[in-house]
Amino acid sequence: MARYEIFVTYKTGIFDPPGATAERALANLGHEGVESVRIGKYIQLAGDVSFEAVTEMCEKLLANPVIEDFRIETVEE
Amino acid sequence: MARYEIFVTYKTGIFDPPGATAERALANLGHEGVESVRIGKYIQLAGDVSFEAVTEMCEKLLANPVIEDFRIETVEE
Repeated sequence: MARYEIFVTYKTGIFDPPGATAERALANLGHEGVESVRIGKYIQLAGDVSFEAVTEMCEKLLANPVIEDFRIETVEE
Repeated sequence: MARYEIFVTYKTGIFDPPGATAERALANLGHEGVESVRIGKYIQLAGDVSFEAVTEMCEKLLANPVIEDFRIETVEE
C-alpha cells in the first residue's frame, strides 16, 4: 500500500480568509511579530494507487486548480 | 524573519468528516484503490516569532488540542 502527503495552498495573490482571520486573532492575543499566516490543506492518502492517479485526484477533487496549487509527496515506509 | 510550517491533523480515532466525504467521492469517480483519506490543515506562518511562541499559538488558536495534534517545522531559508 502506498502513502502520500498532499499539500494544498492558495495560489500567490489569492486572498486567504482563514489565514487573514488567524493573523488578526493572533495579534489580538498579543503575538505582534506575526507577519503572515496562510492556511491550506494537509491531506494524508493511503491505498493501492499510483502517483499519477493521486495527481488526477488532486486536479479533479482534492484541490481547486483555479485558485489552489498542490504538491504531492510519497511517504517512504 | 522566521518561517514555520504547521501540520494539524485529527487525533487517531477522531472522525474526520471531510476525509470520509473525499473517500466516498473518489470511489464514485472510479478511484477504488483508495483506502483512507485524512484531511488536516497545512499552515505557513512567517514573522519575528520563536518556535515556543508558535507552539503557544497552536495550543491557543491554530489547533484544537482536544481533537487535533499538531507538528511544527522550521523552514530553512
